[in-house]
Amino acid sequence: MTVREPLTEFELISRYFSAIGPIKSSSVKLGIGDDCAILSLPVGQQLAMSIDTLVAGRHFPDGAQPYDIARRALAVSVSDLAAMGASPVAFTLALTLPDVDQPWLQQFSAGLRDAADYYQLPLIGGDTTQGMLAITVQVHGSLPQNIALKRSGAKPGDAIFVSGNLGDAAVALTLMQQSFDVTSAQQAFLHSRFYQPQAQLALGQQLLGKASAAIDISDGLLADLGHICKASAVAATLYSQQIPLSDVVKDVVDSQRALYYALTGGDDYELCFTAPVVQRAEIIACGQSLAVPITEVGVIAAGDGVQCIDQAGAIVDFPHSGYQHFQ
Amino acid sequence: MTVREPLTEFELISRYFSAIGPIKSSSVKLGIGDDCAILSLPVGQQLAMSIDTLVAGRHFPDGAQPYDIARRALAVSVSDLAAMGASPVAFTLALTLPDVDQPWLQQFSAGLRDAADYYQLPLIGGDTTQGMLAITVQVHGSLPQNIALKRSGAKPGDAIFVSGNLGDAAVALTLMQQSFDVTSAQQAFLHSRFYQPQAQLALGQQLLGKASAAIDISDGLLADLGHICKASAVAATLYSQQIPLSDVVKDVVDSQRALYYALTGGDDYELCFTAPVVQRAEIIACGQSLAVPITEVGVIAAGDGVQCIDQAGAIVDFPHSGYQHFQ
Repeated sequence: MTVREPLTEFELISRYFSAIGPIKSSSVKLGIGDDCAILSLPVGQQLAMSIDTLVAGRHFPDGAQPYDIARRALAVSVSDLAAMGASPVAFTLALTLPDVDQPWLQQFSAGLRDAADYYQLPLIGGDTTQGMLAITVQVHGSLPQNIALKRSGAKPGDAIFVSGNLGDAAVALTLMQQSFDVTSAQQAFLHSRFYQPQAQLALGQQLLGKASAAIDISDGLLADLGHICKASAVAATLYSQQIPLSDVVKDVVDSQRALYYALTGGDDYELCFTAPVVQRAEIIACGQSLAVPITEVGVIAAGDGVQCIDQAGAIVDFPHSGYQHFQ
Repeated sequence: MTVREPLTEFELISRYFSAIGPIKSSSVKLGIGDDCAILSLPVGQQLAMSIDTLVAGRHFPDGAQPYDIARRALAVSVSDLAAMGASPVAFTLALTLPDVDQPWLQQFSAGLRDAADYYQLPLIGGDTTQGMLAITVQVHGSLPQNIALKRSGAKPGDAIFVSGNLGDAAVALTLMQQSFDVTSAQQAFLHSRFYQPQAQLALGQQLLGKASAAIDISDGLLADLGHICKASAVAATLYSQQIPLSDVVKDVVDSQRALYYALTGGDDYELCFTAPVVQRAEIIACGQSLAVPITEVGVIAAGDGVQCIDQAGAIVDFPHSGYQHFQ
C-alpha cells in the first residue's frame, strides 16, 4: 500500500536527502541547507563537472524500481568524471516527482545513498519539484591542471581500447521490452548491468598521462568513438572480432545481434579510449591491477568517420549508428 | 506555423546552445562538447553552486513565452549566487523538451543568451532529453574563503533589510490566472517583474563582510526569513508599515492584499538580509551607490519564528505562510 501524507519540501529533504555520501570531505565547505553549496579545491586542482537528466520511460522503463533508478542516475553521471580521469568530489540532485510517495522516496534514497557511498560522493545540494518523474544529477570531480582526458587528443596510429564488455545493457533493455529465453542468473546479470553500470573511475584516473583521448560509452561504441574522431579530426577502424562480449550476451543472442548491441546499444558506461601503441603494455597492466578487462579493439587513422571491419576486411554495416535522443 | 524537422542532440546543442554568455572567461578551462566541463578558480577562491528546476505549469504558466522562461530560469538560479555574495563564473543547463520545436528553441536560446550576457555567465555544459518541459539550471560563482553570506549568522539585535519591492511577482502571477483592472503599462511592469526578476548580484557582493545572514526571497518573505531564523536559532519581527511595495501593487490591489502578497507571495528574488545596526548607514549607502532601494523592515531577537506586527503592535495574521512545493 502506498501511503501519501503531506510533507513540505524541507521535511522531504531532511528525511530522505540529508547525510548522503561521505560525511567528511575536505573539499565541501558548505553542504545542503543554504542558498548555495560551497566547494574548495586544493591549490593546483581543477573542477570537472557534468550534468545528466534521466526521464522515466526514456532512460529507464516506467516500472523501474526507485532503488535502481537512483543508483543508475548517479553512476551515469559519475561515468563522465571517469571519462575525464577526475576524482569524485560531490554531487547535486534536482528531482522532479509526480507526488510525495514516501515508500518510493525511501527506496530512491537508499539507492542514492548506496551509490554515493560506493563512489565516495557527498550530496551537497539540490532541488525538489513537482512534475513528471525526472532525475537530474550534476557530479563534480577534481583533476590536476591541464591533464584531463579530452575527446580531442587522438592521433593517427593510436590504438583504440575499451574497458569491460559491451552490449550487456542493450540486451538487458531489450529483455525488459520483449521476453526471450534467459535463465534467472542471466536475467539478474543483465539487470545489474543496466541498472548498476560500473563507472570506471579508478581506470580513468590511471589513464591520465597515458591515454590520448577518452569518452564513456553511453550512446554506443560507434557513436561515442565517432565523437572522439570528430573532436580529434581523425578516423577510426574497429575490428569486429575484437569487440569484447560477455558470456551472457554470447549465450542469449546470436553473434551478429551481439555485435550490433555492442557497437550501437549504448548504456554500458564502459570507457573507450585511445593511446599511442607504446603505452599498450602499461595500459593492459593498469587494467590487470584494477581487475578491469581492457581490450584493444581498433586503430586511429587520418581521415574521418568510424568503420568496423570483419576478419575478411569487409565493412560491417548496421542500419543505425548509436542512440540519438531526438531521432 | 511550427516547423518540426529531425535534429540530432548534437545539432540541437550546436545550433541553439553554443557560445552562450561571455566567450572569454579565465575560469573556464573546458566548455561544452566533452564529457565534463572544467573550471579553475584563482588561488584562495571557493566555488558556490546552486541547482534549480522550473517545471511548466508549476513555476511558470503553460503558455509562457520561451524567451521569458529562459530568462527567468537563469535569473532564479543566479539569485542564489547573489544571496551568498558570490561572483558569477558559469552555468550548466539540463533541458527536457516534449519535442524539437525549432521556433521555440530559437526564442528560448535568445532569452538564455540575453540573460547569460546580462549576468556574465557562460554556458559550459548541459544535457537535452525528451519529456515534459522542464528546465534545470546549475549556476557557479566564486567567493573569497570563509566570507560567504550564509543563512546562519543572524544575531539578536540585528536589523532586517530587504532589497527592492515585494509582492510584484505574486500580483503578476495572480493577474495571469484571473483578470482584474490594470493598465497596459501596469501589466507590462508586472510581467517583467515575474519573468525578468533582477538577481541582486552586485548587492550580494557588496554585503560581504557587512551582512550577518542573507537569503533570496523565492518563497515569500515570511518563509524565507523563517529559514534565516531557523538556521541562526533566532526570532524575527517584521513591521508591516515598513514592507516596501511598488506603486503598481499599491494601485492595483488593496493594502491588506498587497501586504499579503509581499509577505507570502514569493518569486520576487529580492534579497532579505540581516546586519548589526552599526552597519545600517553603510548598507543604505551601498544600495544608493547601486541604485537598489534597501529598506529596513524589522529586527532579530532571541527565540524562534517570524511575526509581522502592525503600527498598533498587533500581529498580522495570514492563513498561509509561504509557498511550499509539495503542499
